[in-house]
Amino acid sequence: YKIELQIREKQLLKGAKLPNVEQLLQEFSVSKSTITKALALLEKNGLIYQVQGSGIFVREIQRTGYINFYKLRGFSDDLSDVSSTVLKLEVQLANQLVASSLEIPLHAEVYYVKRLRFNAGQPFCLEESYFPRKIIPFLTEAIAEESLFTYFAKALKINPGFSDSYLHVIQLDQATAQLLDLPIDSPALTSEQIIHLSTGEPFDYSKITYHYQNSQFFLATTK
Amino acid sequence: YKIELQIREKQLLKGAKLPNVEQLLQEFSVSKSTITKALALLEKNGLIYQVQGSGIFVREIQRTGYINFYKLRGFSDDLSDVSSTVLKLEVQLANQLVASSLEIPLHAEVYYVKRLRFNAGQPFCLEESYFPRKIIPFLTEAIAEESLFTYFAKALKINPGFSDSYLHVIQLDQATAQLLDLPIDSPALTSEQIIHLSTGEPFDYSKITYHYQNSQFFLATTK
Repeated sequence: YKIELQIREKQLLKGAKLPNVEQLLQEFSVSKSTITKALALLEKNGLIYQVQGSGIFVREIQRTGYINFYKLRGFSDDLSDVSSTVLKLEVQLANQLVASSLEIPLHAEVYYVKRLRFNAGQPFCLEESYFPRKIIPFLTEAIAEESLFTYFAKALKINPGFSDSYLHVIQLDQATAQLLDLPIDSPALTSEQIIHLSTGEPFDYSKITYHYQNSQFFLATTK
Repeated sequence: YKIELQIREKQLLKGAKLPNVEQLLQEFSVSKSTITKALALLEKNGLIYQVQGSGIFVREIQRTGYINFYKLRGFSDDLSDVSSTVLKLEVQLANQLVASSLEIPLHAEVYYVKRLRFNAGQPFCLEESYFPRKIIPFLTEAIAEESLFTYFAKALKINPGFSDSYLHVIQLDQATAQLLDLPIDSPALTSEQIIHLSTGEPFDYSKITYHYQNSQFFLATTK
């Protein structure tokens, strides 16, 4: 994380060579496995690339305003000024789709949260989420107006482990178009997302519809 | 890779526990680092998850017909029946955008390849690619009708190391709509992609426009 800060602060250009693992060990005085993990994470997030036998290099810093698709949630990392309006928050009984996505019994209690999310005051996405009450026992509108994931982490000690997203491009229906302040039939990217605890248990099933003019995405892949 | 086959063959369900690393070592008689790398790759591709102190488990096998976004190229892995029509193949002199994306001098020679790609006979995407001639010295239409990446690997010993993609949702202009057999203003996902050798040198700058009805995407993230 300090390495990331260093890259960003020094505004290192693509191809700039970083200190090798031994030098990093000395500089940060942490264990080798910590350094290895930190480098693996930086590589995954597209900040560096490692050439075997040659060194560690900086990748192009991604264009600003792009959301890193590979990060688990976390718009807030990539966008400066995120806010949310809660359109609905209620306890529902899981229907077939929700129950099977969350691996809970049919009609089990879930929180349903519908939020319109803004970036710098502009509508950014519409998000409908389902959380099983057995994992998320308590939610309020005030909480949902802020970052749910910060609340999960701080109040419930719940952190995401991994997620599956299914992406489609669609044309907006009238209700969604109106909420996003777009004409009907506007194009949109939708993401159907299941987020799991690191134990493999799903705790968030969400459908997100992005405003096509106000969102753009970055994806860094490695071999 | 054999582990992946085993998961697919046995149609293991989500949550099924795999043998531990020691058992895998015995079964496949390879080195521990090979097993560790294979497991890391399976985790990255969304096939398994590892719970510390508990074991290795199978993730939900992804829905069929979805393209795994995190794989470097390789539609062919996810789609059964890919074919391509070459609309144009010529040597061009790099303009500003192409030159800076490929990190080559302005007006350096590049191959420009425009292909319409089909999946099971249906238009799947329109792809415009630029390859620097200093890395890809020779290309023909016959080659471009097949997998370029297979040709690069087999004939030129060139393999992708990592890639950056920038994704936008747009409305199709008339020319692109016509090629994809869609009405004008149809929604579309576009990907602007720079693929690098593992040395960090870019060798492919492509713009891909996907047919919104004939393409869908899968993205597996891990912490």
